[in-house]
Amino acid sequence: MALIVQKYGGSSVADAESIKRVAARIVETRRAGNEVVVVVSAMGDTTDEFLDLALAVSDSAPTGRELDMLLTAGERISMALLAIAIKGLGQEARSYTGSQAGMITDEKHGSARIVEVTPGRVREALDHGAVAIVAGFQGFNRLTGDITTLGRGGSDTTAVALAAALGADVCEIYTDVDGIFTADPRVVPSARKIDRITSEEMLELAAGGAKVLYIRAVEYARRHGVTLHVRSSFSHNEGTLVVNAKDGEIVEEPIITGIAADLSEDKITVVGVPDIPGKAAQIFTIVARTNANIDMIVQNISSASTGLADISFTLPKFQAQKALDALTDEKNAVGFESLQHDDQIGKLALVGAGMRTNAGVSAKLFTALFDAGINIEMISTSEIRISVVTRAENINEAVRVVHKAFELDAEVEAVVYGGTGR
Amino acid sequence: MALIVQKYGGSSVADAESIKRVAARIVETRRAGNEVVVVVSAMGDTTDEFLDLALAVSDSAPTGRELDMLLTAGERISMALLAIAIKGLGQEARSYTGSQAGMITDEKHGSARIVEVTPGRVREALDHGAVAIVAGFQGFNRLTGDITTLGRGGSDTTAVALAAALGADVCEIYTDVDGIFTADPRVVPSARKIDRITSEEMLELAAGGAKVLYIRAVEYARRHGVTLHVRSSFSHNEGTLVVNAKDGEIVEEPIITGIAADLSEDKITVVGVPDIPGKAAQIFTIVARTNANIDMIVQNISSASTGLADISFTLPKFQAQKALDALTDEKNAVGFESLQHDDQIGKLALVGAGMRTNAGVSAKLFTALFDAGINIEMISTSEIRISVVTRAENINEAVRVVHKAFELDAEVEAVVYGGTGR
Repeated sequence: MALIVQKYGGSSVADAESIKRVAARIVETRRAGNEVVVVVSAMGDTTDEFLDLALAVSDSAPTGRELDMLLTAGERISMALLAIAIKGLGQEARSYTGSQAGMITDEKHGSARIVEVTPGRVREALDHGAVAIVAGFQGFNRLTGDITTLGRGGSDTTAVALAAALGADVCEIYTDVDGIFTADPRVVPSARKIDRITSEEMLELAAGGAKVLYIRAVEYARRHGVTLHVRSSFSHNEGTLVVNAKDGEIVEEPIITGIAADLSEDKITVVGVPDIPGKAAQIFTIVARTNANIDMIVQNISSASTGLADISFTLPKFQAQKALDALTDEKNAVGFESLQHDDQIGKLALVGAGMRTNAGVSAKLFTALFDAGINIEMISTSEIRISVVTRAENINEAVRVVHKAFELDAEVEAVVYGGTGR
Repeated sequence: MALIVQKYGGSSVADAESIKRVAARIVETRRAGNEVVVVVSAMGDTTDEFLDLALAVSDSAPTGRELDMLLTAGERISMALLAIAIKGLGQEARSYTGSQAGMITDEKHGSARIVEVTPGRVREALDHGAVAIVAGFQGFNRLTGDITTLGRGGSDTTAVALAAALGADVCEIYTDVDGIFTADPRVVPSARKIDRITSEEMLELAAGGAKVLYIRAVEYARRHGVTLHVRSSFSHNEGTLVVNAKDGEIVEEPIITGIAADLSEDKITVVGVPDIPGKAAQIFTIVARTNANIDMIVQNISSASTGLADISFTLPKFQAQKALDALTDEKNAVGFESLQHDDQIGKLALVGAGMRTNAGVSAKLFTALFDAGINIEMISTSEIRISVVTRAENINEAVRVVHKAFELDAEVEAVVYGGTGR
């Protein structure tokens, strides 16, 4: 008997029909002799509707404790409905809030971190033969006694954390595509499904903008040795296994695993920074105080005549204004000349563990983009990833030409079941 | 500084605009120097929408733990939005679930009873100058660790229980009419608002079908000495005070306080019951096992020739079928001849503490109905109430003629603000 954790996102439980379909799938898994724990997100657009309501009742942007209280109602609805649907099929099921399932977090409302998982009641439900349904995205802080939320991708994290705490055999992440693809099938119809990917590569793809899995969940899975299976809730096809490459294990890896694209970042350039030691540290200390998640950083060579350098970095769009304000406040202390804000950038990330041992990957990437007339504005590399920044309007074309250049195209087009791209 | 508990029903927080209006009213009360605890129901039709969803995902009627988990999401949404709206007006506010507010109940899902109220966190919020918002209708069972609901009128009960536990000066129940009226203003436009009513009379009116306050809440208020103020959330008019007549206190009471009508009951008649001791007890033991709430009971005189009697009783419509089934199962054991089910009855209740010392009230009531050609099918009396059953189709006319006969008509017509009659 295997213990399987299944996570269903909002689009999989968007309405009564979808909930019944998911319930049937869960019961099928249970009746095949497995213990089943289900983590569920809020139905469809519920979270957005709640946010709209919150904005409608208050002129100031709501945050913190009360917003978390509001948003967590979403999973409460979907998990209870799913439990009712499963019971309607004659299978015992019990639903648990994050708090009841033992998802203990710190007190950071809106982006809480899991500090402990004590799934005693979930284990008990399984021991009684029931399917356990757990609300994704939410936790509980013991100190304040308050409900918290885990932030973006929180339901994935809930699923992985539960899988780790329960020693699950696999954590299945259900989505509306058949798995992880070599590129977004909506942009590259010939993208190929990846059968098996290392968590290292998956992390780079997620960091590069691939939306199917969130970084935090992949990190958590890697740290705790949880095997992820990303698959479609609309078919019974095998999806993509995200595995941990064990030390010394020789894996026959393709040079390039996949391509991710990201339009969610802006670029800020600090112009005319005195080229003396400590200035970069000073700038990024200021930005860090705004809690910005800085991604790429590029510093150009300082001009010998002026002794001034430019420093550019990218960060999530919604964090840009705060960073600009913080830097402006410290303009004199840092001694830079001006700030530039570019909100029209796109980022392409080429990922593959095989590029470690294969020369020429960068050259082939740059050539493909050059041949397509696409200008590269920033470059950043890791051991298994190369990221480039282009104009936002060129990003889809960039993905297509690079996908083709690295011969990732499949023979048949990928099937995209849903429409929302979760 | 007074401590005021305010309860707002679903129609008072039906949409973003209503929530903002209620928030403004709460802030006004707080800024007038009062400590304010707010109990709130789910927005508008949320509960019904949840029930519809629950029925849509399962062929069997959902009940128990999972249904309570689902329904309680409704108050979670409204309380968080209300807290956000109040904070938007610059007033600190904190929302609490039933569990967080210390509403400890027994384990009966769907109709839990409050066994203890430990509002430590609510008291703490008040001590910090914040408005405390508490989810109505819900509680928490310590033994199972599960969320429960209090059943119909649960939010009123939450408000009264909190008022009692906190030693509040008054518990304000906000509704869409100006208070308690001598009859339903929708049926009798000339109905008069009652300024002051004893909890005893209020209980009889509520039992008689008056919808503004629920019996349980009034009972709880009477037992714990909580003063209720039923008033409109759409005006600043004084409403109706529900007070406890202290022992020995002489109150100059009108003979008749008000009239309630009720179309929510059915009548069951057990025909041909052997007129021997213990038969009535046997019948009502059988019915009680179905958890039916029996209201009126009438037994006719047995026929000397047959030695058989008929026993009629009324009960909520939705409980009728179970009672009929239970009686049918025991037909031979009881030895009755047949069952009759009448789902077209209406009940009128005439209430007034003054009728204790005033003869002729029954006569005047029966005469008014007779003059209007309305047949009386059952009669039941208490010290301060007379109830009669008529055909359902005659009930509104019955209320109007009785209202007029007892000279309850006001000079101006009552204002009904909302439309739903909660």
